[in-house]
Amino acid sequence: MDDLVAKMLSGDRLALSRLISQVEARSGDLVALMAAVQKRCGKAVKIGVTGPPGAGKSTLTDKLIAHLRKKGKTVGVVAIDPSSPFSGGAVLGDRIRMQEHAGDEGVFIRSLGSRGSLGGISRATREVTKLFDAFGMDYVLVETVGVGQTELDIMEIADTTVVILTPESGDAIQTLKAGILEIADVFVVNKADRDGAPLMQAELKAMLELSPRAASQWTQPVLLVQANKDQGVHELLNAIEDHQAFLRQDAGKETAERKRRIAREEVKEIVLEELGTRLNAVLSHRALTEEENPYQVAQEFLKVLKMPGKN
Amino acid sequence: MDDLVAKMLSGDRLALSRLISQVEARSGDLVALMAAVQKRCGKAVKIGVTGPPGAGKSTLTDKLIAHLRKKGKTVGVVAIDPSSPFSGGAVLGDRIRMQEHAGDEGVFIRSLGSRGSLGGISRATREVTKLFDAFGMDYVLVETVGVGQTELDIMEIADTTVVILTPESGDAIQTLKAGILEIADVFVVNKADRDGAPLMQAELKAMLELSPRAASQWTQPVLLVQANKDQGVHELLNAIEDHQAFLRQDAGKETAERKRRIAREEVKEIVLEELGTRLNAVLSHRALTEEENPYQVAQEFLKVLKMPGKN
Repeated sequence: MDDLVAKMLSGDRLALSRLISQVEARSGDLVALMAAVQKRCGKAVKIGVTGPPGAGKSTLTDKLIAHLRKKGKTVGVVAIDPSSPFSGGAVLGDRIRMQEHAGDEGVFIRSLGSRGSLGGISRATREVTKLFDAFGMDYVLVETVGVGQTELDIMEIADTTVVILTPESGDAIQTLKAGILEIADVFVVNKADRDGAPLMQAELKAMLELSPRAASQWTQPVLLVQANKDQGVHELLNAIEDHQAFLRQDAGKETAERKRRIAREEVKEIVLEELGTRLNAVLSHRALTEEENPYQVAQEFLKVLKMPGKN
Repeated sequence: MDDLVAKMLSGDRLALSRLISQVEARSGDLVALMAAVQKRCGKAVKIGVTGPPGAGKSTLTDKLIAHLRKKGKTVGVVAIDPSSPFSGGAVLGDRIRMQEHAGDEGVFIRSLGSRGSLGGISRATREVTKLFDAFGMDYVLVETVGVGQTELDIMEIADTTVVILTPESGDAIQTLKAGILEIADVFVVNKADRDGAPLMQAELKAMLELSPRAASQWTQPVLLVQANKDQGVHELLNAIEDHQAFLRQDAGKETAERKRRIAREEVKEIVLEELGTRLNAVLSHRALTEEENPYQVAQEFLKVLKMPGKN
């Protein structure tokens, strides 16, 4: 494993690919693996791209890659397939479009399935992002359908989160939950040639003005974009750069506080996943009968676990 | 707390309501509370109702309640609001329709928010179901939008899972993931007066025949229903009763194996949630710096935790 990490850190794409597979499969001693990787992290700019199905996330991600490559930047992409039992399926097709970057050594695209546990996806996504970071990618794009708490968690991985909507999702604006308003750093109204795009832009701006924000906070821009015609993408990248500059400048209490909170969440996530694995191993050897009270069995375990805190 | 449980068990609706609130808020010693409740569980028939947004889940649930009440059965309903940041909002309106049961002592309807952690929702839903069961409800209906792994987890709570679709969700059939096919015990094609309903029924049946099932397994019926006109609901209840009879009869290896697996999952869920709470308490007192390696901090915790298994 140390060998694989060393190879990856020296720029070996096959080693990177293997480590991503290991993280996705949750196999091996990932805590030790990631402890080694973490030491080389911290340089990549992490951008989240989220929005409802059909908003054009993949097309936009594709254009962002192209623009960043033109500037000589390397890019890693993590795309999370929403494994909704009722939707899904379209994602693979979208991925194929990105194959144009397939021969480009400066780009690495990886889709993660999401059939596993929800906490698992969130942690795997975070860790693949770290692998890209340690590998030396200048930018990491995390693309996910925004339909739930998991996606909100995943978006916490990003420094700058782009929320993409279309005039068609007009009704959705009314029901945009506070969570999205809070995580969005830049709004994109895509398919801006369609009727209703300027109206939607105006409505979003009005909505953002209504939500109370301190003067010291970032003002979320709302951009009109036609991703498929590559219009407005340059401006979007500028907005992302502006937000990155704001984060560096700010260096204030909010950002540091957020980073500490995320670090605490990471520790918790790592510990609980490992304990879950150990519990699975123990429980598979214990013949629980139908009549047994799971809460009493849990109480036994909790008594044995010498965890700091109330016992 | 013991007092509240005793009151609930003696039929006090206010006590039931308070205990549900406590479970939803994840407050107090829920492990001890539920250990007491569990002893009185096991009689209720648990029915899951799931399907894409707009399929008519709430209308169908409403009619199922009416039919069960006519038979003199008491009914508890847990409805999970999908807190999708992009959708949602319609659920509250649907709930209002059910208010016609509001004066009925034999019915108790409760919506659960889902802003909390995803594991938390699944556990809270399971526990509210147990509260209804211990309270003496003959039937517990669990209604949830089927859009992800959480919902699949939630549906494991049900003995009989009804998946409801409409002719409009025709395209969705193509992308129905294996998970839904496996959890569905009864399929409902709702809005059966619309064009395409019989075709959809035929397609679903063809699809089910393609998926390999042992001869000893339950054959999933596909019913045409017009929930808003109360047509086919009686037949649906008959199909549910048939499945219940099948489960009692079967009593074979599969059912027992499933129950043991669920019991193990429950123990794991309970232990990990409690440990997560304790970890939160410990971590809030630890000043994690930005530079600290969360994997190394996690390793420290994992060394201290005297958990059976590899260390």
